[in-house]
Amino acid sequence: MTTDAAFVDMALRQWNAAIDRANKFFGALSEEQLQHEIAPGKNRLIYIWGHLTAVNDALLPLLGFGKRLHPELDSSFLSNPDRSAPDTLNGAQLKRIWDEINESLKTGFSKLSPAEWLQKHSSVSEEDFLREPHRNRYTILLGRTGHLTSHLGQAILADVQN
Amino acid sequence: MTTDAAFVDMALRQWNAAIDRANKFFGALSEEQLQHEIAPGKNRLIYIWGHLTAVNDALLPLLGFGKRLHPELDSSFLSNPDRSAPDTLNGAQLKRIWDEINESLKTGFSKLSPAEWLQKHSSVSEEDFLREPHRNRYTILLGRTGHLTSHLGQAILADVQN
Repeated sequence: MTTDAAFVDMALRQWNAAIDRANKFFGALSEEQLQHEIAPGKNRLIYIWGHLTAVNDALLPLLGFGKRLHPELDSSFLSNPDRSAPDTLNGAQLKRIWDEINESLKTGFSKLSPAEWLQKHSSVSEEDFLREPHRNRYTILLGRTGHLTSHLGQAILADVQN
Repeated sequence: MTTDAAFVDMALRQWNAAIDRANKFFGALSEEQLQHEIAPGKNRLIYIWGHLTAVNDALLPLLGFGKRLHPELDSSFLSNPDRSAPDTLNGAQLKRIWDEINESLKTGFSKLSPAEWLQKHSSVSEEDFLREPHRNRYTILLGRTGHLTSHLGQAILADVQN
């Protein structure tokens, strides 16, 4: 493995580990448990999971892998706060969508060369990228891994036994 | 910048951004606010901050930068749960230690070449490292950035107004 490939491999390991933790945590919860709040008055677990799903879906165009698979997630889980409207998905439905999106991301990740990881992502202009070459796919991967980890840290605070 | 150096630069940017967020969040809290729990019955903010400080201190030997500066943090913030014993530090004291450790880490980080980032960390044996070359300094940096981000996600849930 070249050193460039090693750097990509290490970041993907962190991403995969975070996705695995999310799979284990959310996948073990009942529909009833997914309705629990992470803390009194805070977001419900189903909202956090949906939010992470919407953010992952938005990675597909951002990284140049294609169109979004589920843009309809945004109104429930991204652009509006939790409980703005009745739930449109239950946990079983969300799980299928979550898995589908993560599978598409995995396929996209696997096709990128190290040099392609260093190319600009789709939300930065050519001019800005010349000045700020770190605004590339790799930085997006690191940042989104952090976002996922941050919300997982919150989700595990939920008291799902009561 | 070589591509190897770019990969190091991007991971350090994530680390620095997380440290900055922690500085802003914890640095703005009063001694009284640091006593708040992140959620009812959960860890206090001062414990989370102390825990992150102890973990950062432990990075110094793990990454080969030298001895720990504050091993005494472990009994209050790492090996025992919150409120096991009376507090030994207030927020102002903790802030000085936190800044001191992060400054030492910054110095250590700045001296490493990309090749040195790919060298094994001090807790993995030579044999294991041959089989698992990703167990290097860079992976530690990514993992600890995730750890920091995860606890920051929890800390910001605390209701510090009441």
